[in-house]
Amino acid sequence: MDLRDKIRNIKDFPKEGINFKDITTVLKDKEAFNYCINALAEIAKEVEYDIVVGPEARGFLVGAPLAYATKAGFVPVRKPGKLPADTYSYEYELEYGTDTLEIHKDAINPGDKVIIADDLLATGGTVQSTINMIEKLGGEVVGVYFMIELEFLKGIEKLEGYNVKSLIKY
Amino acid sequence: MDLRDKIRNIKDFPKEGINFKDITTVLKDKEAFNYCINALAEIAKEVEYDIVVGPEARGFLVGAPLAYATKAGFVPVRKPGKLPADTYSYEYELEYGTDTLEIHKDAINPGDKVIIADDLLATGGTVQSTINMIEKLGGEVVGVYFMIELEFLKGIEKLEGYNVKSLIKY
Repeated sequence: MDLRDKIRNIKDFPKEGINFKDITTVLKDKEAFNYCINALAEIAKEVEYDIVVGPEARGFLVGAPLAYATKAGFVPVRKPGKLPADTYSYEYELEYGTDTLEIHKDAINPGDKVIIADDLLATGGTVQSTINMIEKLGGEVVGVYFMIELEFLKGIEKLEGYNVKSLIKY
Repeated sequence: MDLRDKIRNIKDFPKEGINFKDITTVLKDKEAFNYCINALAEIAKEVEYDIVVGPEARGFLVGAPLAYATKAGFVPVRKPGKLPADTYSYEYELEYGTDTLEIHKDAINPGDKVIIADDLLATGGTVQSTINMIEKLGGEVVGVYFMIELEFLKGIEKLEGYNVKSLIKY
């Protein structure tokens, strides 16, 4: 199956000039969704891990099924104020302004082997921040897996030294 | 396994007087997470369906793995402005003010059999709105499944006539 055929392109979303990759057309197609998660699970066999971390909200849609499929636990990375227990917060820079992500302090134990899963690698800011948070808690990031990589945005350059793979590249 | 042992209670979150049920401690425990999704999949065998609908964001954490586990498609219900294609919007009343949810208009086809999955049934406003949206698009809601039901909030009363089940009740 070529997942490219299942991804919908939406022009000028969320703002003019951006050609948005809509994965909801993959998710709602049971064969495509199953294929996608199985393909990520197949790649992830290359490493051993206990935890899949996924950033809110589309990372939940890829990471939670991947964790289930590979019998791992799932840890969400969320926007501020959403996680109820003690959190570690991480502020990172955007093109204009900053953004903040949070993870539960007890979600990762020192020495835990962790993979990160998300729908899309764009500029890499979210995943770089997620890696920093996991490492701050003592976790080891053994794989970073995406459904889609937008190569022209060069997010991969922020992830040097990490094991990064994607199902599809544009 | 008693999932109650895996759920963390957080006092006064998100505001004073609320005893929040934190499911992240279920998700990060691989045995508990696997057990939880398998238990929901077992219940869902009672009906035939093509699509699992889950509301943002914790509904993604339950609904997406459940869809994968039972080889169904997954359709997200999201906060305004998050879905990129044509959406159907639904505004509903809260204790103070209103909230709005969106679904892609082409996410459900007339006659589709749909189940809804979410982490928690509280007052039932979100799920009632989700049902309305699915039915507006011509879908048939054949099951509404939760990890947790807070019985004292009587959300079930808003869902009369629907097939509602929960793994745990408080």
